[in-house]
Amino acid sequence: MPLAPIDWSVYLVTDRRTRPGRTILDVVRAAVQGGAGAVQLREKDGPARETVELGRAVLEITRPAGIPLIVNDRVDLALVLDAEGVHVGQNDLPAPEVRRLIGPDRWLGVSVTTIEQTRKALADGADYLGAGDVFGTASKSDAGEPIGLDGLREIVALAHVPVVAIGGVTLGNTPSVIRTGAAGVAVISAVFGADDPEQATRSLLEAAHSAIL
Amino acid sequence: MPLAPIDWSVYLVTDRRTRPGRTILDVVRAAVQGGAGAVQLREKDGPARETVELGRAVLEITRPAGIPLIVNDRVDLALVLDAEGVHVGQNDLPAPEVRRLIGPDRWLGVSVTTIEQTRKALADGADYLGAGDVFGTASKSDAGEPIGLDGLREIVALAHVPVVAIGGVTLGNTPSVIRTGAAGVAVISAVFGADDPEQATRSLLEAAHSAIL
Repeated sequence: MPLAPIDWSVYLVTDRRTRPGRTILDVVRAAVQGGAGAVQLREKDGPARETVELGRAVLEITRPAGIPLIVNDRVDLALVLDAEGVHVGQNDLPAPEVRRLIGPDRWLGVSVTTIEQTRKALADGADYLGAGDVFGTASKSDAGEPIGLDGLREIVALAHVPVVAIGGVTLGNTPSVIRTGAAGVAVISAVFGADDPEQATRSLLEAAHSAIL
Repeated sequence: MPLAPIDWSVYLVTDRRTRPGRTILDVVRAAVQGGAGAVQLREKDGPARETVELGRAVLEITRPAGIPLIVNDRVDLALVLDAEGVHVGQNDLPAPEVRRLIGPDRWLGVSVTTIEQTRKALADGADYLGAGDVFGTASKSDAGEPIGLDGLREIVALAHVPVVAIGGVTLGNTPSVIRTGAAGVAVISAVFGADDPEQATRSLLEAAHSAIL
């Protein structure tokens, strides 16, 4: 894999529904300051032109920090932004088609819930996996039944690429997530919903790093 | 322009809301049979994977008929489908970025409402324009005030590329649309809502061709 290594410990996924008085960019800036190792731009419904503008603004934060920006679902946006990667779910464009469009030098992440999906994603050349919904979450309305730590552990055991756990991850359960062998936690609410997103990120990072040791 | 010429007279734009008992593919097949010269796949909200499947099925109808399939908004879908073109609105990806992604050998269509947008789209290298909303339509909820035949005429006068009129076009007003110099009519409801989509397309085509003479 010709890609620079990433610290997946805390992988911020953006959410349009921020608290009043702060923007998505405010939260991204705080999370990067707090030690987030990657940012996913996840804007499912907005007009593409707005998302491009938002993505460019996010890149002004992530790029100087040396952190990859990974675009959810829309490969065309990733290409226009020259983003560092694309993340697709099971209902998005098929991973092999995505790889053809983005080439070998961008991260390709795939959301998986089951062992079967994991095998498929690995065969399709995923560079990392997003596994979940682990604990049940309100952020992703299209998620099915939570897979729990056991489901996560099975996926991690099978995968030879980093697995990031998503869905209901909190500061409290981060150590148990990391002890399954997951490379990190993908968080929306735990940072976007925090009183202090920078401190929330830093605490998650410390919890993740401590659990590895 | 290295692209094969198109008869824009009747340009079918797909609509997910079909009548009970018939599918999008039924209507596309009927419209192609009736003489539609181009088909636009317009699926704003569905999961990309479903749209790819739908697009492949549409291509099985359009390609043997020698008719281009033009994908609305999502350049990545157009590339995956190897579709003949992309159509973007003012809130979609900017036309220059789209051109960079699709290259010179696919159609690039741009929706315009004003003279200013028309100048911009032409400068950006649009191969054709979709002008409207002409008469007011229920199909596109994001459209502003209708531009009327006068607005359409101004756009046509300025453009050196085909202009297709969209928005509230019916069999009754098609002749007046064509007499502005427009290359054709883009229709959703006039075909998707018709009792007999094939006959509706044929009638529109005859009305358009008669108005030119």
